[in-house]
Amino acid sequence: MARNQIDELRALQDTLYFIGGKWRLPIINSICNGNKRFREIERSIPGITRRMLSKELKDMEMSKLVQRNVYTDTPVLIEYEPTEHCRSFGKIIQEMINWGKHHREIVVRGKS
Amino acid sequence: MARNQIDELRALQDTLYFIGGKWRLPIINSICNGNKRFREIERSIPGITRRMLSKELKDMEMSKLVQRNVYTDTPVLIEYEPTEHCRSFGKIIQEMINWGKHHREIVVRGKS
Repeated sequence: MARNQIDELRALQDTLYFIGGKWRLPIINSICNGNKRFREIERSIPGITRRMLSKELKDMEMSKLVQRNVYTDTPVLIEYEPTEHCRSFGKIIQEMINWGKHHREIVVRGKS
Repeated sequence: MARNQIDELRALQDTLYFIGGKWRLPIINSICNGNKRFREIERSIPGITRRMLSKELKDMEMSKLVQRNVYTDTPVLIEYEPTEHCRSFGKIIQEMINWGKHHREIVVRGKS
């Protein structure tokens, strides 16, 4: 084996664990696309509940993927900002989106 | 919205559906790393059962991700080969592996 397959597999499983669940990647993608406020993020992901979005954003803050900025004006403004670490995954998501579009063509439309 | 977020989300959900399950990505990674025979692939993924691997390989053949080559020598030799489409996802997996290694450093060791 040219590379350490077991180490690589562990790193891959770490990543898969991190992106686990239905909503994590759509949320990262939304925030990396410039949506900052809770309502904006919610609207960009049809089907997500407020409760799920709230839970995910808290987890992502703990994992240093998202920074929560509170501006104490009236009314209070809360904005979510992706960290550099999150943005680096955002680029991978963009490639996954492009791959997904191509995959649809190959599988559904029978192109190759 | 600068880009069509709903279309992108659909393509992302297609991709997530495709990589669903615990084993799909490790199998793609293994085959893209040059493992060709059932036993080689099996050995490179600790914990996978033969039944799961067999099922996944069949699904992947249907989805045009893997080509199954049968050489009718004695004994019969069966090799799995990634399609170009599969290889293009292999590159994304490699980036996910690198990201996973970095993520471990950030979250577990507290670096940033």
